[in-house]
Amino acid sequence: MAQLQPVLIAGQWRPSRSAGSFSPLNPSTRQSTGEVFPVSSLEEVEEVIAVAAQASEALLAVPAEARARFLERFAERIEARRAEIVALAHAESGLPVKPRLDEVELPRTTGQLRQAAQAARQSSWTLPTIDTKAGIRSCFAPLEGGVVVFGPNNFPLAFNSVSGGDFAAAIAAGNPVIAKANSSHPGTTRLLAEEALAALKETGLPPATVQLIYRTDHQVGQRLVSHPLVGATGYTGSRHAGLVLKEAADRAGKPIYLELSSINPVLLLPGALRERGAEIAGEFATSCLVGAGQFCTNPGIVLLLAGTETEQFITAVVEKFRAAPVGTLLGEGVERSLAQSVAALQKAGAELLVGGQAGGGAGCSFNNTLLRVSGARFLAASEALQQEAFGNASLLVIAQDEAQAEAICRAFEGNLTGALYTDRAGGDEALYQRLAPILRRKVGRLLEDKMPTGVAVSPAMNHGGPYPATGHPGFTAVGIPSSLRRFAMLQSFDNVRPHHLPPELRDKNPTGQLWRLIDGAWTQGDMPAKS
Amino acid sequence: MAQLQPVLIAGQWRPSRSAGSFSPLNPSTRQSTGEVFPVSSLEEVEEVIAVAAQASEALLAVPAEARARFLERFAERIEARRAEIVALAHAESGLPVKPRLDEVELPRTTGQLRQAAQAARQSSWTLPTIDTKAGIRSCFAPLEGGVVVFGPNNFPLAFNSVSGGDFAAAIAAGNPVIAKANSSHPGTTRLLAEEALAALKETGLPPATVQLIYRTDHQVGQRLVSHPLVGATGYTGSRHAGLVLKEAADRAGKPIYLELSSINPVLLLPGALRERGAEIAGEFATSCLVGAGQFCTNPGIVLLLAGTETEQFITAVVEKFRAAPVGTLLGEGVERSLAQSVAALQKAGAELLVGGQAGGGAGCSFNNTLLRVSGARFLAASEALQQEAFGNASLLVIAQDEAQAEAICRAFEGNLTGALYTDRAGGDEALYQRLAPILRRKVGRLLEDKMPTGVAVSPAMNHGGPYPATGHPGFTAVGIPSSLRRFAMLQSFDNVRPHHLPPELRDKNPTGQLWRLIDGAWTQGDMPAKS
Repeated sequence: MAQLQPVLIAGQWRPSRSAGSFSPLNPSTRQSTGEVFPVSSLEEVEEVIAVAAQASEALLAVPAEARARFLERFAERIEARRAEIVALAHAESGLPVKPRLDEVELPRTTGQLRQAAQAARQSSWTLPTIDTKAGIRSCFAPLEGGVVVFGPNNFPLAFNSVSGGDFAAAIAAGNPVIAKANSSHPGTTRLLAEEALAALKETGLPPATVQLIYRTDHQVGQRLVSHPLVGATGYTGSRHAGLVLKEAADRAGKPIYLELSSINPVLLLPGALRERGAEIAGEFATSCLVGAGQFCTNPGIVLLLAGTETEQFITAVVEKFRAAPVGTLLGEGVERSLAQSVAALQKAGAELLVGGQAGGGAGCSFNNTLLRVSGARFLAASEALQQEAFGNASLLVIAQDEAQAEAICRAFEGNLTGALYTDRAGGDEALYQRLAPILRRKVGRLLEDKMPTGVAVSPAMNHGGPYPATGHPGFTAVGIPSSLRRFAMLQSFDNVRPHHLPPELRDKNPTGQLWRLIDGAWTQGDMPAKS
Repeated sequence: MAQLQPVLIAGQWRPSRSAGSFSPLNPSTRQSTGEVFPVSSLEEVEEVIAVAAQASEALLAVPAEARARFLERFAERIEARRAEIVALAHAESGLPVKPRLDEVELPRTTGQLRQAAQAARQSSWTLPTIDTKAGIRSCFAPLEGGVVVFGPNNFPLAFNSVSGGDFAAAIAAGNPVIAKANSSHPGTTRLLAEEALAALKETGLPPATVQLIYRTDHQVGQRLVSHPLVGATGYTGSRHAGLVLKEAADRAGKPIYLELSSINPVLLLPGALRERGAEIAGEFATSCLVGAGQFCTNPGIVLLLAGTETEQFITAVVEKFRAAPVGTLLGEGVERSLAQSVAALQKAGAELLVGGQAGGGAGCSFNNTLLRVSGARFLAASEALQQEAFGNASLLVIAQDEAQAEAICRAFEGNLTGALYTDRAGGDEALYQRLAPILRRKVGRLLEDKMPTGVAVSPAMNHGGPYPATGHPGFTAVGIPSSLRRFAMLQSFDNVRPHHLPPELRDKNPTGQLWRLIDGAWTQGDMPAKS
């Protein structure tokens, strides 16, 4: 058996005080990748937490510019080791090297790190607010204690706990990160952490700013997110494991930001189908099957109104699902869980149109799957029919009329996204006005005439939404600078002497670039001199 | 027995489908106020929730300007009925009519409603963000479902569930309110709700925008805050009851903003005491005893360094506590709980300097109480010695040296405020630099040379802080417009057609006053025309 991989604690790669071990699988071959990783003990996790708390204090003395340089240097180092990182990510995830990992996900990852660096440098994410009359000033500032990041299985780079969105946001906001690798790509995570550590040393940040463990049992995980010395947690992953962590964090009053599950309703209004049904069928099939459907924003449920156009649309989509190549799934767990979910949807009354069985692709795979159910049946079992089937599967819901479509919208749970397709001539307008306001409040991001799978790293992005999509409808996991504010506390300074204020709140704008709300007006200027 | 007071549901005052009743006490006389109020049944609460959910949808069609007019009209109506409201608030709370209720709290209440109206009108609280390149726009928007407000006992007007800060914030942000009166001043709350209903009718808002119930049992309260049709909850009150509600809301993924308890550490550094110890003793006694100490920001713990100046300070404060009149407490529950807390502090090792017994004032009262404890003892029992003694009592902690003072700061739990007094000549600077960074992250608002009891309604105010002071360190209950964002969700619009966007996100600035972040720059202008 291969030697146990070391953990990264306090700036050192060292043997784990492990409570067990695990070996990841290559999902394309169903064979072990040959590496063995430790399950960390409670003792080890307690040490990681204490070290992070010290780093959290040390980081207070580190200027934002140094954090920015770290993020940029880290991005450069990832690019320099690109081939090795992408190759291991492919072996561990089964995701294609090109275009996905090399041309899409890696550039997105380094781009995100650089955007976070810019946000740290400008500091406008802190929303500095100055009330000259009351003598009170406020801004957001890093938390006390490390930020724990649990990355998901489906983005080994762009949401990796050591290079992804939560990581970049936490560091840019001034927090050290305790990374818990996703168990499906621990080797990729280790490579990234090696580069992070080197970049920390090059830019003079506390070496304990980034620490890495690979796995814990549930009980140790609960201790991790609820520990008094931990600042907050970012979690992206399965609903079940997420809720176990949420309960522990909530009970301790520790913020936890979760991205749990989402089926992303797409409403195809009749006029749109009449106008361009074939085109939409293509868009939908592409969005649903890209990456074997393993996206948080995969269109998992489509609402249609009964009619000829709908039947034509369904026929076209079934054809496309049958013809499209079947992708490799991220692992045996995903394959198993997809089979279970599809079976559960059938048990709840959905009818299989195509697919429904494992296989059809290289390694772990499941045939492209489409199901349909009547609106009446959906309303009778709306909870069971809204369970996420993570992967290349989707459920079509056929409403018998507009009133039923409205009732179905009202029955939707919280989701990351919701999309509406309408005709360009305006024939769908009345129905849009009836359904959109309902859908709007169920989802974080509303799309029109567009499928949900692309998630731009934009300041206006909301990759969040009402429970159970996430744990709080006011925060986004993607989008800089707003994602930084998840890992921050609001700090007010009342009558505090000028030289005791942080640079963001002093009379003089520290960079001339920082946006501040002074007496109700946003400005990049200095405080006006007192008259 | 007097007739049961009606509840306000769906715009109607009507008999409660009650599960019991209660009578509030006049704490100045310990006699019943003569009114009897219902305890609402689960059935009644479920109806209130359903009605609020409908109002929440109806409010989408109401322009921000109408919400602003309602808040302003409501403020005018409160002023018109001022004498009656203040008299009943005095009878129910024991708080002095003048200056407290009539000259301080009522003007603060109406001022806050007017500030909230201005915030609603300007809409800048929604943080509209436009990314022209990506075609994505976002803003904050009201929640789906009503906002439940539980008001505290200590501000019958300014934090009343029908006129206070949470109420104003929830309505200004576009949400209907389900008010749960504080059981100690239900009559005052009823008068305010009468004026709110009249103002709703005058300004054309849905009459169910404000509903009022008086009390529920724990189980019904838990159902209320966790109901699928409820948007969020604002709670200010006791830690025990708050945590019961928090657990239910958290489990359902419903935001709940809590203000639980805070002892507000005040650090008096040696130079400051040498320079102006007598002056500070006066400031401290006033801050601690005003309103019989019944403030969330009451200075409940004072950290001093052993020495002559400290002993002189203590002697001066004891003298002031002995000489000061003893105020009336809000009720028998407060009196009982204060006695229990003072006894518990003594049991944990604190020594009584003055006070310690019930009585000394009119009606419910407790002698002005001061305790002291050594730093070593504090560190040995820091949890027991940090329990809140809500009322006119405070604990002095005497550290033997600077290292021990630092250890004590590290042992502080999360608080709303923390204050440091330093000398003007700069002699305390080194110790300030050692202690302030630690204290800074334990508290929402840091004060210098100022006692914490005044809470200005300022955009830079943070009336919040790390757990257990509140449930999340990123939100404030006081301060407009930031307090509005607690009762809102982030909504992103991706590729949505211009006429389907909300006014805040259209190309043209709807008022010319709205601040928007367009491509990284804050502006009150329109979108630049496409080149």
